[in-house]
Parts: sequence; structure tokens; C-alpha cells
Amino acid sequence: MNLPPMGDSALFPARELDTPALLVDLDRLDANIQRMAAAARKAGVSLRPHCKTHKCPEIARMQIAAGAEGITVAKLSEAEMFADEGFDDIFIAYPIIGEHKLRRAARLGGQIRLIVGVDSFEGALGLVKACDREGVNVAVRVEVDLGLNRSGVAPDKAVDLVQNVIDLGLDLDGLYGYRGSGYPGATGTLAERGRQEADLLLGVAEACRARGIKIKHVSLGSTPTGIAAAQVPGITEIRPGTYVFHDNMQVAQNVCTPADVALTIAVTVVSRPAPDLATVDAGSKTLAGDIVPAGAGLTGYGQVVEIPGAYVARMSEEHGVIQLPPGAEVKIGDRLHLIPNHVCTAVNLSDVLYGVRDGQVETIWPVMARGMRG
Amino acid sequence: MNLPPMGDSALFPARELDTPALLVDLDRLDANIQRMAAAARKAGVSLRPHCKTHKCPEIARMQIAAGAEGITVAKLSEAEMFADEGFDDIFIAYPIIGEHKLRRAARLGGQIRLIVGVDSFEGALGLVKACDREGVNVAVRVEVDLGLNRSGVAPDKAVDLVQNVIDLGLDLDGLYGYRGSGYPGATGTLAERGRQEADLLLGVAEACRARGIKIKHVSLGSTPTGIAAAQVPGITEIRPGTYVFHDNMQVAQNVCTPADVALTIAVTVVSRPAPDLATVDAGSKTLAGDIVPAGAGLTGYGQVVEIPGAYVARMSEEHGVIQLPPGAEVKIGDRLHLIPNHVCTAVNLSDVLYGVRDGQVETIWPVMARGMRG
Repeated sequence: MNLPPMGDSALFPARELDTPALLVDLDRLDANIQRMAAAARKAGVSLRPHCKTHKCPEIARMQIAAGAEGITVAKLSEAEMFADEGFDDIFIAYPIIGEHKLRRAARLGGQIRLIVGVDSFEGALGLVKACDREGVNVAVRVEVDLGLNRSGVAPDKAVDLVQNVIDLGLDLDGLYGYRGSGYPGATGTLAERGRQEADLLLGVAEACRARGIKIKHVSLGSTPTGIAAAQVPGITEIRPGTYVFHDNMQVAQNVCTPADVALTIAVTVVSRPAPDLATVDAGSKTLAGDIVPAGAGLTGYGQVVEIPGAYVARMSEEHGVIQLPPGAEVKIGDRLHLIPNHVCTAVNLSDVLYGVRDGQVETIWPVMARGMRG
Repeated sequence: MNLPPMGDSALFPARELDTPALLVDLDRLDANIQRMAAAARKAGVSLRPHCKTHKCPEIARMQIAAGAEGITVAKLSEAEMFADEGFDDIFIAYPIIGEHKLRRAARLGGQIRLIVGVDSFEGALGLVKACDREGVNVAVRVEVDLGLNRSGVAPDKAVDLVQNVIDLGLDLDGLYGYRGSGYPGATGTLAERGRQEADLLLGVAEACRARGIKIKHVSLGSTPTGIAAAQVPGITEIRPGTYVFHDNMQVAQNVCTPADVALTIAVTVVSRPAPDLATVDAGSKTLAGDIVPAGAGLTGYGQVVEIPGAYVARMSEEHGVIQLPPGAEVKIGDRLHLIPNHVCTAVNLSDVLYGVRDGQVETIWPVMARGMRG
């Protein structure tokens, strides 16, 4: 793999790395982690960061050290990896469905404090059977659909499902939802969206309590709306993920400034197909295909740090064609740095992240939970 | 990783695999490989399949066994992997730029017959210096821009670059280009596009010959246009990639029928957010974000094999929200199979492919050149 030795002993100039390479600005990463932890502390809520963004145990350890009370993941393979790495309080914010996954979840529940998502009676029933077979119990949070229409029980059916979960003998830990900022029909400022999201979920929590059901946790995402949601009394936990690195989507929504973006992709100009075009060695197999929603004022698949106004206008798998602004001087062999639109999918395409400070690579982190094992 | 043992001894029902899982229909794969090999043979051209599609040595071996004379890859890390696996005739159809890559290319050129792309004087000069330092030579093909405007020298400047390559002492092997079917301003049938593409590149070859330059190979992609291009006298080689598996993009262009598609993604229905929606455990980290170009009559991010008219309408990272046609009966826990829009980027997201025949997993292939090492 032509990689230098792993671990803290690595210390060499980042400019010596071959491209494409995902560089993490360690100072910015640390500042982002501290800022979100402080915001959660100030709001009096738990922080359970979503680690699907980085899939790196070392970064999750930094989040825990800054005050996170546990971690969130999107799938069992991520939970299994983090458990292997010593994390003992993990929430899989996803419905666990199917015999394989139920068995894996039950086994993992015998090893660590595991919380899993449930959004259907079928899911709850499968889980209780799997737990019985393994002789363990896992904590359950019922997912409520807050308007994304992708998973979660409808709010008006949530109380019944919560009751089912209790009747089946599962250990109810609370409610959770995710809507983020880009749900259908989104209106208002991000702060307003966060508060609306919180009100929706708290309404379900109140309905449960009115039926005498104890709801411990009321948990919400996300990086753009989480801090506002955390201010609403009754919300107990937030699960932002992207904030560790930020990306074009967060910049476009004014969630952060470009100076907060902690992950960039070092690329090399390999061709100049036209005076206003420069092609770099990073395409859809490096940047991923996510686009910033229309209207946010950002075009293309990635922005160029060194050249304001330059962006990746087209991609093939290994080619990124950059549209240059008039007068930009770029030559073959130049090294540029791209900000991806969506950092979570870009990280998922890379074997490793390079932790950089003052231009030196200080550490190399494998993206350990890559792959597609469900 | 919870994987069964690797190798030919694996034999178990595919339905026992956890999802998401990339399943390769071994009979269809074999038929696709044989069909393209026969078409190239019939046209009298060499076949040098593009292995970025699968990144699997075993599949490349099947292609060689069927008559391919060498392989094509998109980047050095792929070439290095295939060389480690015993492949000794590899074309990197990409400009090699930057000190690291030039050194790696020169070293690899000392081990196998390596051909690399050149589309600029800077690239040619870098290559000759790196080869001199390592005391080796690598063969060079000059890339001509056939209208994609992403890499390749403009046709009217190609002869001069070819002359530069010769003057620098590099070993000229010929010309290559790629335009595929979806270039800007594409018109005509696929066969017409293939013939136009061939005529463009042959025009440059003729201009070189008129200057007394010997052009051995005139090489073109692709799965949609390659066979038509191969019919044009003077074309010596084609480099299709996707044909081993096919995908929605090929179906949409009538390059194949759905019955030829050899790779599907087994998924599980995890939620039913609405009567006309079913959410499965495969999103943008499984299917990739490629869309079928507008006008091709295919909407969304993936088609559902079992339900005509159903397609993945929206994706999050681990959620695929399927729009169901009226009357479709789908319940939580159901297993479905998706055809991805673009198989190359979907394969790039998976650790392994499962080779299936008659419902049994016969083999497990690691996608060996995954990652982003340039």
C-alpha cells in the first residue's frame, strides 16, 4: 500500500503524500469537537456523536474525552468495530431487521451497553426473540418519523408502538428521531427547524407520559439543527456527526465557515483539457456523488481551497473536471485541495485519513468501519 | 467480518447472506465475458478490458482466459495490485503526473509490461526522467481528447505531442481515447457514435503516419460504443469495462437487457414509512450516487428486480427509499434485489462480491483494489 508506518511516530510533510489523500487539520478537528461538546454541555444535554462520519476509533476517543457520553452509529458493522475497539456504550440509530442482524445485535448486547432503534412491531418482535435466544437484553429507542419519510413510526402511531415495546418485555430507553435540515417542505431558519423538530418529538414523549410510560431519553440529530434542538426543554441528547469535519453542505447552510472545515482532499492536476478547465485525480470514487441542494449557492461536487470560485463541475470515476474562474493560473502537476460536498460519503471511500498539523502528518488513521457488511 | 471462509469451498444458499450484499450471477458473468470476447475476435481487434469495474483478479483471469490480451486500469494502485496478482501486461489509461506516481510507474515498468497514458509534454518529460532514474522504460500511449473534455490532448495538437514523446526517447505504443456514449452534444445511435469516435482517433493516427510516425495501437473504449468502434478498419483494440456486469445505465441505453445484468444488490426492507414507500438497508454508501442521464427513461438510484416499476427514489447514507407502484406488496423483513445505476462505483463501495450460481454462493471475491491510494 506504500504507506508510511502507522501511529504517532509518523511525522513528515503532508506535501510528500501521494494524491488523492484525505487530510485532517488536527487543530480544526479539535476545535470542532470542543465547540460541539461545549454547546451540548451549556444546553444541559448529552452528546452522543454519530461516528458514521469518520468511522475512526481515535476520533471517537477524542469525542468521548471532550465529554460525549457514548457514540451513535448507523449499522451493526460499525457498532461491532467500535465495540472491538473498547467502546462500551453504543446506539445503533437504525432499525435492526432480519435474522442475521438480530442475532448479531443480541450477541453484541451481551458484550456492551447496546441501544438499538425500533420503528415497527415486526422489528420489536424480532428483537425480543433474538434476545431471548441469546439470554441477553438490549435497550431500545423507538424511532419517530419527524418528516423525512424514510424510517421511524408516524407520530400518531408512536405511542402504540412504545406500548408494544414495553409489553414485549424490551428495555425501553426512550425516543429518537432525525430530520436534519433538508426535509421535504423545510422552512424557517435552522434554529427554527431545530426547535420544530424538538417540539414534534417532545409531543410524542408527552403523549407517552400521559399514558404513564416513562421516557428517559428524547434524542435528536443533527449538525445543522442539533444545537437549537438542544435548547428546547425536554430534549436530553443530540447526535450530530458531520461537525467534526464539516463540509460544503454545512458551509452552504452557514452552519460553519470555510475556516472551520477540517477535512480537505489533496489532489493533483493531471490535465488541462481547456483554458478554463483543469482535471484532477479525484472523481466520484474519491469525492462521492452528493450534491449540495439547489438554492444553497454552491455548484458542483467540490470547492477548491486555493482558488475562490473554482469547483468540480463534472466527474468520472477518477477524473474531477474543475471549472476555473477567469484568470486562474493552474498547471499540470499543481497540488490543490478540495472541500467535499458531503464529508461522510467521501471518508467512506478512503482507506485512511492523514492527521496534519502545521503542514506535518502527525498520524494516520484507518477508516476502520469501511465496507458494506450491514 | 462475519464472513464464511474464502475460496471455492464456500457453498451455501445466497439467501443466508446478510444484507446488503453484492451478488454476481456467475452464469451471466461468464456469458457477458464470452460475448464481448467473441465480438472483439470477430472484429479482429484486441480486447483489453477495463478492470476498474470489478477490481477482482479472479474476474480479470476469466477475461484473459476468454481471450483478452491484457488489462486496462484507471490508476497505479490498481495496476500494482494486479501486478502483485501475476498480471504482466497492464495499461494505465490515465495520465501519470507527480513525482510519487512517476516513481511508482517506473518501478512497476521494471517488473511487467506496463503501458501508461500521456496527454501533455509535462507528463512525457516527467515520465522519461523517472524512467531514466530507475533505468527502465515503459510503453506510452498518447491520449487524444475525443470530445469529453476531461483529459487527452486536443486532436489538432496530438501529432506534435506524439512527436515530443518520440523525441524524448519514450517507447510509443500508439494512441488511445475515450468518449463513451454520454459526451456533450452526443447524437446518433450508439453504433454511429462508436464509428464517429473511431474516425476521430483514426484521423489523428493518419496524421501521425503522414509524418512518418509508426502508430501500432489505436485503442478505444467502451461498453456501449466499443463493438461498433471495433468494426472500423484501423482500430486495433477496445477497452470496455462495464460489460462484465452491466447496470441500469447499460439497460437504459439498450446495450443489454435486464436479463444480462450479472450484479445485483441483496437488500432487506427495514421500514415502511408510507403505503407507497419501502426503505431498504442500502443507501449512498452502497449504491453510490450516480444517476442515469435524463431522457433515458430511468428514474432514481436503482431498480428493484422483484417489482417492475419500483425504484430507489431517495437515499441517505444507509437508507434507500423505494417508491412502490400501486398494489405492490412489500413487508418489513422482505429481501429484494437492486440493480445499481452504475456498477463500477457500487462495486467500489463493497468489501467483497459473492459469486452465485443456482442460488448457491460458490465463491467470495474481495474487491482488492478498493481504497484511494491514487
